[in-house]
Amino acid sequence: MSEEILMEDILRANEEIAALNRSLLDGSRTFAVNLMSSPGAGKTSLILETIKRLGGRVKIGVIEGDVASDLDARKVGECGVPVHQINTKGDCHLDARMLNAALRTFPLSQISLLLIENVGNLICPAEFKLGEHRKVLVSSVPEGDDKPYKYPLMFSEVDVVVLNKIDLLPYMDFDFERFRRGVEGLNSRAKIFKVSCRTGEGMEAWIDWILGELEGFERELERKGEGGG
Amino acid sequence: MSEEILMEDILRANEEIAALNRSLLDGSRTFAVNLMSSPGAGKTSLILETIKRLGGRVKIGVIEGDVASDLDARKVGECGVPVHQINTKGDCHLDARMLNAALRTFPLSQISLLLIENVGNLICPAEFKLGEHRKVLVSSVPEGDDKPYKYPLMFSEVDVVVLNKIDLLPYMDFDFERFRRGVEGLNSRAKIFKVSCRTGEGMEAWIDWILGELEGFERELERKGEGGG
Repeated sequence: MSEEILMEDILRANEEIAALNRSLLDGSRTFAVNLMSSPGAGKTSLILETIKRLGGRVKIGVIEGDVASDLDARKVGECGVPVHQINTKGDCHLDARMLNAALRTFPLSQISLLLIENVGNLICPAEFKLGEHRKVLVSSVPEGDDKPYKYPLMFSEVDVVVLNKIDLLPYMDFDFERFRRGVEGLNSRAKIFKVSCRTGEGMEAWIDWILGELEGFERELERKGEGGG
Repeated sequence: MSEEILMEDILRANEEIAALNRSLLDGSRTFAVNLMSSPGAGKTSLILETIKRLGGRVKIGVIEGDVASDLDARKVGECGVPVHQINTKGDCHLDARMLNAALRTFPLSQISLLLIENVGNLICPAEFKLGEHRKVLVSSVPEGDDKPYKYPLMFSEVDVVVLNKIDLLPYMDFDFERFRRGVEGLNSRAKIFKVSCRTGEGMEAWIDWILGELEGFERELERKGEGGG
């Protein structure tokens, strides 16, 4: 019981800092997307492809969360966008406090789209709000079509499911309809995009979604009269 | 700081129950293997293939750990071996207390090899001993060759790394030598088996390893004069 109460306290404190982060982001007119997935589903690949396609039009920044190493941050840094590495020192998820510390050292005023790569974990990150505007789950074909049924909280929490590695569909037993039904049974609002970061297939719809969300964010800020400008 | 102390207390209490579990297992001459991996790497497939190849010779039982659903337990149950489902109710790993409750309802005296499928998570399960005799990590080709570098604790803790889905090697950029160097840099004792549960390739070496470990376990029990019999 005391563990449960402690967990509630931790989550409540986390939400307070997440609200601060949201104010910081809105104040600098930065739209933030929290990318979550199992290890190796392709969060970094999706970020790299997004930079390749949008980097000339939208000012992108990236925050990389990892339990160890800076391999992904180095890959992203080679694209010439601002990148910040959060090393969680073994913690299995990002939390709002970690993001807050990162945001305070980041050139937010120069960034319109902030892509936050969470730690590779299909369970714990779903519980911790960061103050992001949208949550995106990258799922992948080799993980199997049963994942929505086995990890329901993550699939319930997100705004978008990007199903990556569709180039492997011919070599695997993956029933897309079963996957889709699993997602929709948990989360009727989530959009599903089928992509291959390797071949580029399906990336247009994902990019169009981001551009639409960025426009909606700008309009919303104008309406609220926030964000200076 | 108080969170750290609490975590130490939790891990210490867990180790005490893990030691009890080990006594229970040794007392019933049951060799227990804790299978860990990312979601969808193939733990259930490896269990099913192991039952198919060994079920006639070795009395196998399975304990399935999941945050939700009993999909895997039902698949295993169809093979006709005793199976018990642990539903962690959202917890991101099995712990010794959960296993203890399961062992007390399980026909241990009739089981020589107990396969314990942990929750799909490459981080948290590495911290929680269950009382198992061996820890096995199932990694998979689509997750990428960088996983040992990014999730070092898990790769450091295990006795065996089973690299699954090698049938997908022709369709992916996976550098096995980079993967192997990553594992060996963290863990000089870990054996690596390359398998495809889908095609059956490489399964003999894995099965031989289990049989060898079972023999060694029996000899060790004889030497200690434990286990009745």
